[in-house]
Amino acid sequence: MIVVMKKGCQEADITDVMRRLEQSDLRGHLSRGVERTVIGVVGVTVAVPELRERIELMPGVEEVVPISKPFKLSSREFEPEDTVIRVGDVEIGGNTLVVMAGPCAAETREQVMSTARAVKAAGANILRGGAFKPSTSPYSFRGLGEEGLKLLAEAKEETGLPLITEVLTPGDVELLVKYADILQVGARNMQNFVLLDEVGKANKPVMLKRGISATIQEWLLAVEYILSQGNRQVILCERGIRTFETYTRNTMDISAIPIIHKLTHLPVIADPSHGTGKWYLVAPMALAAVAAGANGLMIEVHPTPDAALKDGAQSLTFEHFEELMKQVAPVAAAVGRSLAGTGSRA
Amino acid sequence: MIVVMKKGCQEADITDVMRRLEQSDLRGHLSRGVERTVIGVVGVTVAVPELRERIELMPGVEEVVPISKPFKLSSREFEPEDTVIRVGDVEIGGNTLVVMAGPCAAETREQVMSTARAVKAAGANILRGGAFKPSTSPYSFRGLGEEGLKLLAEAKEETGLPLITEVLTPGDVELLVKYADILQVGARNMQNFVLLDEVGKANKPVMLKRGISATIQEWLLAVEYILSQGNRQVILCERGIRTFETYTRNTMDISAIPIIHKLTHLPVIADPSHGTGKWYLVAPMALAAVAAGANGLMIEVHPTPDAALKDGAQSLTFEHFEELMKQVAPVAAAVGRSLAGTGSRA
Amino acid sequence: MIVVMKKGCQEADITDVMRRLEQSDLRGHLSRGVERTVIGVVGVTVAVPELRERIELMPGVEEVVPISKPFKLSSREFEPEDTVIRVGDVEIGGNTLVVMAGPCAAETREQVMSTARAVKAAGANILRGGAFKPSTSPYSFRGLGEEGLKLLAEAKEETGLPLITEVLTPGDVELLVKYADILQVGARNMQNFVLLDEVGKANKPVMLKRGISATIQEWLLAVEYILSQGNRQVILCERGIRTFETYTRNTMDISAIPIIHKLTHLPVIADPSHGTGKWYLVAPMALAAVAAGANGLMIEVHPTPDAALKDGAQSLTFEHFEELMKQVAPVAAAVGRSLAGTGSRA
Amino acid sequence: MIVVMKKGCQEADITDVMRRLEQSDLRGHLSRGVERTVIGVVGVTVAVPELRERIELMPGVEEVVPISKPFKLSSREFEPEDTVIRVGDVEIGGNTLVVMAGPCAAETREQVMSTARAVKAAGANILRGGAFKPSTSPYSFRGLGEEGLKLLAEAKEETGLPLITEVLTPGDVELLVKYADILQVGARNMQNFVLLDEVGKANKPVMLKRGISATIQEWLLAVEYILSQGNRQVILCERGIRTFETYTRNTMDISAIPIIHKLTHLPVIADPSHGTGKWYLVAPMALAAVAAGANGLMIEVHPTPDAALKDGAQSLTFEHFEELMKQVAPVAAAVGRSLAGTGSRA
Repeated sequence: MIVVMKKGCQEADITDVMRRLEQSDLRGHLSRGVERTVIGVVGVTVAVPELRERIELMPGVEEVVPISKPFKLSSREFEPEDTVIRVGDVEIGGNTLVVMAGPCAAETREQVMSTARAVKAAGANILRGGAFKPSTSPYSFRGLGEEGLKLLAEAKEETGLPLITEVLTPGDVELLVKYADILQVGARNMQNFVLLDEVGKANKPVMLKRGISATIQEWLLAVEYILSQGNRQVILCERGIRTFETYTRNTMDISAIPIIHKLTHLPVIADPSHGTGKWYLVAPMALAAVAAGANGLMIEVHPTPDAALKDGAQSLTFEHFEELMKQVAPVAAAVGRSLAGTGSRA
Repeated sequence: MIVVMKKGCQEADITDVMRRLEQSDLRGHLSRGVERTVIGVVGVTVAVPELRERIELMPGVEEVVPISKPFKLSSREFEPEDTVIRVGDVEIGGNTLVVMAGPCAAETREQVMSTARAVKAAGANILRGGAFKPSTSPYSFRGLGEEGLKLLAEAKEETGLPLITEVLTPGDVELLVKYADILQVGARNMQNFVLLDEVGKANKPVMLKRGISATIQEWLLAVEYILSQGNRQVILCERGIRTFETYTRNTMDISAIPIIHKLTHLPVIADPSHGTGKWYLVAPMALAAVAAGANGLMIEVHPTPDAALKDGAQSLTFEHFEELMKQVAPVAAAVGRSLAGTGSRA
Repeated sequence: MIVVMKKGCQEADITDVMRRLEQSDLRGHLSRGVERTVIGVVGVTVAVPELRERIELMPGVEEVVPISKPFKLSSREFEPEDTVIRVGDVEIGGNTLVVMAGPCAAETREQVMSTARAVKAAGANILRGGAFKPSTSPYSFRGLGEEGLKLLAEAKEETGLPLITEVLTPGDVELLVKYADILQVGARNMQNFVLLDEVGKANKPVMLKRGISATIQEWLLAVEYILSQGNRQVILCERGIRTFETYTRNTMDISAIPIIHKLTHLPVIADPSHGTGKWYLVAPMALAAVAAGANGLMIEVHPTPDAALKDGAQSLTFEHFEELMKQVAPVAAAVGRSLAGTGSRA
Repeated sequence: MIVVMKKGCQEADITDVMRRLEQSDLRGHLSRGVERTVIGVVGVTVAVPELRERIELMPGVEEVVPISKPFKLSSREFEPEDTVIRVGDVEIGGNTLVVMAGPCAAETREQVMSTARAVKAAGANILRGGAFKPSTSPYSFRGLGEEGLKLLAEAKEETGLPLITEVLTPGDVELLVKYADILQVGARNMQNFVLLDEVGKANKPVMLKRGISATIQEWLLAVEYILSQGNRQVILCERGIRTFETYTRNTMDISAIPIIHKLTHLPVIADPSHGTGKWYLVAPMALAAVAAGANGLMIEVHPTPDAALKDGAQSLTFEHFEELMKQVAPVAAAVGRSLAGTGSRA
């Protein structure tokens, strides 16, 4: 943290700041220039935003500039080795590319089963599907609830694919843990701190989607909630951010993928279905994410997208998904990744 | 809803779309042009986003354009008269300007009591203060919990000011209802749909802050969750949106105030403390909000902002708050509003 | 400028940075902490972004944090007193509120003359109107060119109102100077640096609109181009920024007004016509801007907005403009400003 | 264009709108629903934004919804076949991947020559380099001007690489045409309409960068300026957009690449140097762009980035560029593209 004093501030102002730092067990180093004095504060591992704000309000202070990153447990400095999360036979975070695929929402037994079979046949490693769905309008479909979970469990049983499904509220964590292999926390809940605490106590991997307008730093601080409760099995998922562009539903921030790899030791998945909102953009953006280093993909698939109860516009048909898997393989290979389980498919 | 067919689409494509509309009990009106055919779909009051997406995926369809607004119970068309919400002696939504003031978070008995007395003396009508606080970092102050509620209740008791305080999670609604006169749902929870359902069942007015990147339409759909559960006492609060500008914490969207008045019958409050993040911008933005037609203000006040545990940088001292109240009065008068309770202060 | 060294960097890295600073005639002050070393660089008045980038690339360097503001001639530190610009009898930047009004574009003699008379009668002080218009589409109206200037000159002659009109390209400055009392540089040209140089050499006041996605710092650096060419008569104009919200054409950043007053000594005008894009939002946002401290307003007026060749949706009729002027007066008075020339209207 | 009438509008309002459409030689088709009447307007190829605005202001009209895309000459409907632009031996827009590389700005003879040789040796097809540079601050380096062009011409001569360089202002087009094989119009000038007109008259290919906050539609309308002047050799370049994220200089919108391919017949290049602002993100984002279908890359290279006068932080060293070229080849192959001129390198 650097305290920048105003031009022509009083000597007493400087003394006051130095004293305030000492009260917080911090040491300040004075640098006096011709025009300006700055005070370097070293020795703080975890930033204290409140302290920064308070010092900024003191007389004679122009600005306080933070220099430490405020997240800790997710950082490369804390843990230099890549975290690899095991779910059944699948490893997330290693050299293989993981593909999570399935319907946006469970609707009917037939839809869930046929989709699970189709994505398994095409090479997916994990089944995705929602039973509790967030919906912008109260008049839209909100999911089948526990009935949906049972359908997904049946599909998991038959195909052997582990299941990832979304949890919306702290009170549901106990129920979801019974059905899911990975708990998903959605973009709208990225800063639902009570929910983060709760999944942080669960004994299951958690995939945390980036909030629609979350900076990377805020995202990593949300991860920190889960890690600091003791759950170290966290996967990040980039799913597009809100910008001024209206052609796409969101703007997928592909650069977040290499940035997450640089800053943290955690795996990162890309969701081009939500990231674009248009099925015909899913394939090119999936390839882009893999080329940029994503550890996996999350793809929405539906037997008849034009009859889907939710997110049909961004869902692939079985044929399109199969085609996508064929396109993904050489791009993954080009960047040194193999498709997970490709061997066992043969 | 308007279905725009592609140039040179097949006659069968048009027939298919017409049939699909009939299956959904909708009537389509064909308009054939030289280059393009469009199908007008009338008779839908509440938009069904799923139907729109599904039709957009049909062969020959270029685009589907929604024309109805998707919110209903909050709209002026549904209820042309302004909703006025009564909390004790205070009316929110009428010709008087309501001022909610107090600390960001309850910290100590002394801090809560002195602040409550100071804001009451300066003319505030409602006491604000948080016991459960959302915090970007898990290492920051998260509020005193029920102990904080008790301090706020004591301040309410002594000053006679009604209390507004934030609820973070569905499980806390029952507890909060015992202490609060108005339940506040914060920006990060604007799309916490389970929480919206829950406060929609509570018998207390709810103030719903706009999400940091929520469009006005999404905000009104979140309101619709609460209204459709039966709770018609909803207040909106504009508190700044996220933009590219970094000088301010958020960009306060003052234009949202007249827009809410045009689209809905509900009162709208402005929060320039969070809207700007800097105490010296609170006064000009409070005046701007009043001039634009806000029904009230929400202001953070602290005895010693530079020692605050939360949001000190945007909190006013007692003196600054008193000064602000003096500046607000003539601007309110200039746009035909009086300060609530001004009479009784004399 | 603060150079933050990496944890565990080499002693030689530190020496290299210190030497590099000396080569640029800068002095570095070392602060060694338990975990990290930082180097404070003082004595630089104008930031050199290149130097910052270069040092950031040196071995062992984690980050370089700028602490000086990069603009100089516009800053309050350089000139503490408010700049007041005189155009005929009108003062811009003092205690009076200036109103610039007129058509978006000059279309016909009748339209220009009737509008000029109407805005003068209602109390406007300066006539606005464009002859060279920027247009998103090449198939839209782009202005009448010099013919339009002649119409505006005639209206200026008859009403006695000074004229503000837009210059689009360096080659037109010489022509525009003959007709205009104030040269306007539009939002799309805020970073047209060759044009900024050129108007910086002109002997006329310049009003520089904020770019649609310009930060306040970029805007002030654009101002710096004009000032550094010798032209000290610069007016800023806030006209809305681009955000994710689609209800309004732009989101008007009212907080930019008090921020400009805090950082600079230059006057700032608000343009609620472009700021909102909807005529019914012009009045509330004009009042908000005045309450927040704007030195003036710029308003589009048209005899028959629904027949306008450009920007009809945001233009006021004569009646609406007259009404607005009546609403503005008490709000201006409430914040200690009088309408310019109000006295002489009597 | 669809005119949506208000609920309960007058019969006369409808008649007025129909008459107004006829005056503009347009035909309206009435669709009367139980609650609402809509008027479909067909037969307009190029949208007239002014007409839309005017009708929106008519009594009884709720909203006017555009349905035609406003760009024409760049659209796939106008020209279904991909446009291929030939510059010397290089084809831009076909199956080969074009790499434009070189320094951000020409600084010295040694720097330009060594960089040109290095990028040629590593497989680049086109030399990039600026002599006239836009700069946010007037106190930063603005390029060497014609002296810089001469250095670039010498490098072009020796290496045989065609040259792309930026033109900042209409008055420079004549000069630049003498030196450049491709004229580049930068992001800040995307809506410098006088400059667009001027390069539209030049007999050279033009590469138009996307404005920092330009929607895809605005970008294509800027392209339309150039095309409608007769110059059909236009290349688009995605270089990042402005969002709320501060970790990167811009957020690179990779999805713009497949969208441009879908909407237009023109080639699209990706610039990950400006798109990210950080050299270590250039490689992953270059690979992502290629995987998503980009026709080429534009990369900044410098012999000693930490001594660069401009954009050092985002420039690759010779070694990093060579490494990037090796990584690009297999990804290009994986999506069915070959590196241009790979054959002749052998």
